[in-house]
Amino acid sequence: MKIVVIGAGNVATHLAAALYNKGFNICQVFSRTEESAISLAKKVNAGYTTCLSDVNKSADIYLYSISDSILPDLVSEIRIPDAIHIHTSGSTAMDIFRGNAVNFGVLYPLQTFSKAREVNFSVIPLFIEANNEYTYRKLEALALSLSSDVYEMSSERRKKLHLSAVFACNFVNHMYEIGSELVQDAGVDFDILQPLIKETYDKIKTMTPREAQTGPAIRNDRNIIETHMKLLNGKRNLAKIYELISNDIYSIHKKQ
Amino acid sequence: MKIVVIGAGNVATHLAAALYNKGFNICQVFSRTEESAISLAKKVNAGYTTCLSDVNKSADIYLYSISDSILPDLVSEIRIPDAIHIHTSGSTAMDIFRGNAVNFGVLYPLQTFSKAREVNFSVIPLFIEANNEYTYRKLEALALSLSSDVYEMSSERRKKLHLSAVFACNFVNHMYEIGSELVQDAGVDFDILQPLIKETYDKIKTMTPREAQTGPAIRNDRNIIETHMKLLNGKRNLAKIYELISNDIYSIHKKQ
Repeated sequence: MKIVVIGAGNVATHLAAALYNKGFNICQVFSRTEESAISLAKKVNAGYTTCLSDVNKSADIYLYSISDSILPDLVSEIRIPDAIHIHTSGSTAMDIFRGNAVNFGVLYPLQTFSKAREVNFSVIPLFIEANNEYTYRKLEALALSLSSDVYEMSSERRKKLHLSAVFACNFVNHMYEIGSELVQDAGVDFDILQPLIKETYDKIKTMTPREAQTGPAIRNDRNIIETHMKLLNGKRNLAKIYELISNDIYSIHKKQ
Repeated sequence: MKIVVIGAGNVATHLAAALYNKGFNICQVFSRTEESAISLAKKVNAGYTTCLSDVNKSADIYLYSISDSILPDLVSEIRIPDAIHIHTSGSTAMDIFRGNAVNFGVLYPLQTFSKAREVNFSVIPLFIEANNEYTYRKLEALALSLSSDVYEMSSERRKKLHLSAVFACNFVNHMYEIGSELVQDAGVDFDILQPLIKETYDKIKTMTPREAQTGPAIRNDRNIIETHMKLLNGKRNLAKIYELISNDIYSIHKKQ
């Protein structure tokens, strides 16, 4: 089974490497960014191209791991009707392939990937969907070779799952980022926050986030909240972000 | 050395228990909430009162671990000039004691405390400040008996440190909370997010949060962002929170 990987970003890199390590034949990597294409191609012992017309036409699976904003264009330009077409996006519907392919589906890995960081694919939950039984069986086999956590999920539910992941991952990470900026104002290193960050993370393994909440917002401690908002004045929109999140925390806790 | 603990909330409970375990004599717990006062008093083998006029006048240290909004009133009502007065707030200045006490200071533990959860006090960074050398030495000795990470920090810097902790802990936890609400809309259990949450946390042990960021906001993927904001419509202010955080992520990354 030959696979062409469309894209060479974070997800494409990790997914292609995981497939390669499980013995799949990645025959080509396509990316507009030559440096990324070369780097991933080397990693998975594949050819590469930066030119859409040179995409290998004889593969069995085309795996699209690219930005959602360019996915529709690429899908309609590649159009190889006999093959299976799979994208890995959390929020783009499977139907994006309809009219461009006969057998298609989605393989969404619920994880944050950075090129510089190794991940253990075998513990990543994978959410799959296909437009027919034949494609589903192929996709399921492929997914199960990568991870033991494979679930069927519709495009509609996957979109909601992806949204929850944006809060639980991207926005959590951005709160770390803002914390790291502000801790420098206090003249201390980000590392000083690590025991606090660890405990915040550890808590929700045994408590719900609602039970775990502490701090000025849950108490609606106006003195502190106003002191903090003053400190944030002039720092992008951080005062507004602080206010909205604090109000949201208080709004769900005062009802209890 | 006899200590009166003012307050019986999360911080008071953990701090009093840690002091008691290190052999300090907690002679009394004061809290307006009788149930909390009794529970903590029992834990640290102390007396208790819910009545301000019955607060023991002969202790060496008065330790205030109460909401910042009621701290000023209690400080001015208790007024025992011979003793050392310490509060544990991140954002209230040490000077709140001025005029009410001769020897005073602050002991701020940088951690999130929930009564139901054990913590290892010995790895918690403690930030101390005192109005004179005598008090500083006493406070430092007390702090060092609890933790090996003890730092002197002014009220001004402590306020900024506390603000960074609100983002890195309280707001991170609230992003977990929102994630847990939204994942239910997708018909899956919060636990499905645990590998993602773990990796998000693990990443920043070796990468900066800025390097670790992924997701639609950093790519300014408008299709996804608008899809997600539609899903959030009618859910408190979550669409606005999503928009502000996404814009903030993009604003710091597009400059790079």
